[in-house]
Amino acid sequence: MEHSSHRQRGPHRHVTEALHFDGDVLRAIDQTLLPWQETELELRCAGDVVDAIKRLAIRGAPLIGVAAGYGLALELARDPLALERASDRLRAARPTAVNLAHAVDRVRSAAIDAGPGRAAGAALAAAQSIHAEEEAASAEIARHGADLLTAARRVLTHCNAGALAAPGRGTALAVIAELSDRGHLDAVLVTESRPLLQGARLTVYELARLGIVHELIVDGAAAGLIASGAVDAVVVGCDRVAANGDVANKVGTYGLALAAGAAGIPFVVAGPTSTIDPCCATAAQMVIEQRGPDEVRRLPAVSAAAGARELTLSGTRCRNPAFDVTPAALVTALVTERGVARPSLDGSVMALLR
Amino acid sequence: MEHSSHRQRGPHRHVTEALHFDGDVLRAIDQTLLPWQETELELRCAGDVVDAIKRLAIRGAPLIGVAAGYGLALELARDPLALERASDRLRAARPTAVNLAHAVDRVRSAAIDAGPGRAAGAALAAAQSIHAEEEAASAEIARHGADLLTAARRVLTHCNAGALAAPGRGTALAVIAELSDRGHLDAVLVTESRPLLQGARLTVYELARLGIVHELIVDGAAAGLIASGAVDAVVVGCDRVAANGDVANKVGTYGLALAAGAAGIPFVVAGPTSTIDPCCATAAQMVIEQRGPDEVRRLPAVSAAAGARELTLSGTRCRNPAFDVTPAALVTALVTERGVARPSLDGSVMALLR
Repeated sequence: MEHSSHRQRGPHRHVTEALHFDGDVLRAIDQTLLPWQETELELRCAGDVVDAIKRLAIRGAPLIGVAAGYGLALELARDPLALERASDRLRAARPTAVNLAHAVDRVRSAAIDAGPGRAAGAALAAAQSIHAEEEAASAEIARHGADLLTAARRVLTHCNAGALAAPGRGTALAVIAELSDRGHLDAVLVTESRPLLQGARLTVYELARLGIVHELIVDGAAAGLIASGAVDAVVVGCDRVAANGDVANKVGTYGLALAAGAAGIPFVVAGPTSTIDPCCATAAQMVIEQRGPDEVRRLPAVSAAAGARELTLSGTRCRNPAFDVTPAALVTALVTERGVARPSLDGSVMALLR
Repeated sequence: MEHSSHRQRGPHRHVTEALHFDGDVLRAIDQTLLPWQETELELRCAGDVVDAIKRLAIRGAPLIGVAAGYGLALELARDPLALERASDRLRAARPTAVNLAHAVDRVRSAAIDAGPGRAAGAALAAAQSIHAEEEAASAEIARHGADLLTAARRVLTHCNAGALAAPGRGTALAVIAELSDRGHLDAVLVTESRPLLQGARLTVYELARLGIVHELIVDGAAAGLIASGAVDAVVVGCDRVAANGDVANKVGTYGLALAAGAAGIPFVVAGPTSTIDPCCATAAQMVIEQRGPDEVRRLPAVSAAAGARELTLSGTRCRNPAFDVTPAALVTALVTERGVARPSLDGSVMALLR
């Protein structure tokens, strides 16, 4: 990291705040160290934000969009000539989530439209607008999703689609929290979400803070538990949604959709409309990020006392796709801030964007 | 353990030998320490064998049957009056695999039929027969399976169904090794098989020794890779097969069967007929073992240098079914030493037992 630094967080708050902008610094909780250490990164330029996104200290499609917007604004405040270079670096930090490109393009356009001397201020205002809109979207997603799932008392979720993935209370976890607020929820089954354990580390952390009853399972246990009748609905987030309703999300999502379909329970995807990519007709046009083998071969060090832990023979070849694709036909509902689409019925989500 | 002890193994042999009987001791490789340490347990009584089976130092449906047979014979040689108590303890060591009960019942009957004074010798002979039969079954399973899968160049397997799970070269891995011997195989995709990582630890270890090209993936990646066309067939072992062809196997198997079915590739289950339980009409009558939460919450210590590693907040509630059920309708073929049944076509495997 070029200009970032760490400081310890204060005592627990009940709603997790993944990042906030603080004048000339973007403060973000380092998600690679959760749930054991609550450490805040101080990000001061685009390079800091690129680094934090690449190493998944900041993650979740909406959140990396928000962070990238601030990253570009921070960079412009430091160097007015850095616009194109910083935009390119931020856009390329991760390839699958379209929010990243959307946010960078919007902040960049605001800077260009404002012209010299006003670019940095306009960029920051645009970044703050994106942040505020995504936070408002989270609340609307929660409302629409809970309206849809009044009969779902036992919900399964995958990876982390909470406050650590999107402003507000997140996407899928915002729906779950709203169901809990309405007294409709008995328990949440959480998949651990290997390789990086966002379910075990982040979703468990958020649900514990929210006081929502939950149980952790290994990813392989989900399909059998769904088949056994232990789950009323599957609710997940999304990294990119194609125009036909195909969904790219954390690897493992497609298997959950198959299991939900076989069991006849709803498979619900929650996300802001900023995750919809009208330029992708279907998921076949999406780039699925392939990450390095060490995420599979070992667990990363979380502290000096708990160093990296080998899980297999060193040198073992691994394949590590970060996402998979769930075809629209398996998506019962796509819940956005603008309402609910039914990809499995009409194969389109484009009406939401009109 | 009551009478077991450890010694270090010699240099690698290419075919792994999970256990062998050595006069008055059953020597078994401690599978909890693989692939990092090749340590041999010396088991001298039924209690030692029960302990090794419970803590998964010895695992795999056929192998725990063989080990239990020897365990009963060892106990009878020490105490002729221990027959019923030792039989009960061995039978109860794990609930799902039926091989355990089958083997114990057979060795017990041999002892009773032989009468006082000859019981221990008859028990040992019966245990050795079971061992030899399972070893022969492995070779026949390999032959039938490879005959069936001549078009499968890229195979995915789950958990470990190799020489560490069954005598000889195992079940599913015996088929895979035979495909490799025949020059029909390009590569094997291996799921890591959380929580205990039998794929990452044991199957990778065996395939490396056999010189078969393989890639490791997280469990959640399997369905998406199958859908993407990266796999020609899924081949797994089985812990218990019902009379109608329903299969209980390592948790995560059902999800692989769903993905294979959706992709139109064969889902093949390999196992000796000793895993078929004619007393279970369907899987609904099977007991699915529920194991403790710590297997999900943490990785066990593998050495003093690599202590147990927490994966989530301590105290997190977990659900940890060891197995799941794949309905017969999703099982393209059940490959046994007596030939191949087609559960998805005729819903029965009973013809194999006649």
